Amino acid sequence: MLIKRLKDIRNSNRNVTDRGWESSRLLLAEDGMGFSFHITTLAAGGEWTFHYRHHVEAVYVVSGDGSVEDLATGERHVLEPGTLYALNDNDRHTLRADTELVTVCVFNPPVTGAEVHDETGAYRPAPAP
Amino acid sequence: MLIKRLKDIRNSNRNVTDRGWESSRLLLAEDGMGFSFHITTLAAGGEWTFHYRHHVEAVYVVSGDGSVEDLATGERHVLEPGTLYALNDNDRHTLRADTELVTVCVFNPPVTGAEVHDETGAYRPAPAP
Repeated sequence: MLIKRLKDIRNSNRNVTDRGWESSRLLLAEDGMGFSFHITTLAAGGEWTFHYRHHVEAVYVVSGDGSVEDLATGERHVLEPGTLYALNDNDRHTLRADTELVTVCVFNPPVTGAEVHDETGAYRPAPAP
Repeated sequence: MLIKRLKDIRNSNRNVTDRGWESSRLLLAEDGMGFSFHITTLAAGGEWTFHYRHHVEAVYVVSGDGSVEDLATGERHVLEPGTLYALNDNDRHTLRADTELVTVCVFNPPVTGAEVHDETGAYRPAPAP
């Protein structure tokens, strides 16, 4: 059994911040669960375009309000506590935070922690260990 | 892109209640994400022993207080908002809710929705479709 505490993760190298978001990786590939599990907080007023070409991701809103736009269709979905969106088709999307958003994010395959967002908003696959 | 809303799931056959817990399955195997994603609420004062022999599971506490006991070692871990436990070794465990617990649960392989808890607290593998 693994025990992970958000307060500890936030003080570790598993905490990543960038352009208005903070991602706290409670589970990474090395934990062997077959998915990674992140608490991601996005600052009020922010807007981000992401395209995870190598991962599927589910995002569940714990608190806050915003929207997610599917850039393939132009459809925009309201985000509020209790909403989940799943990028089951590696969907390119724009996320907007009207207020601070606190989310749970699950990636498959699991993020290793070595990825970086590239110029297209994708995580590049991790380099070989 | 899939959009799932907890309020809709709670009014569907993806909502399961049993002995003091309620599991709202926002993502199941049929959604094709490679994991299932549940919001599980556990009633204050409850105690449950589970043993998922066929799945690994991560449980993240959104709200509430309680504990999880690893029955292999006898070790008991405090659960509070921000705590995650991962049953990476199919750990048999006892979960106690001191107050109502609201949790996010992720299973790999994904739950199909057809499993039932058997007499040992396991989910039996789903019958063939």
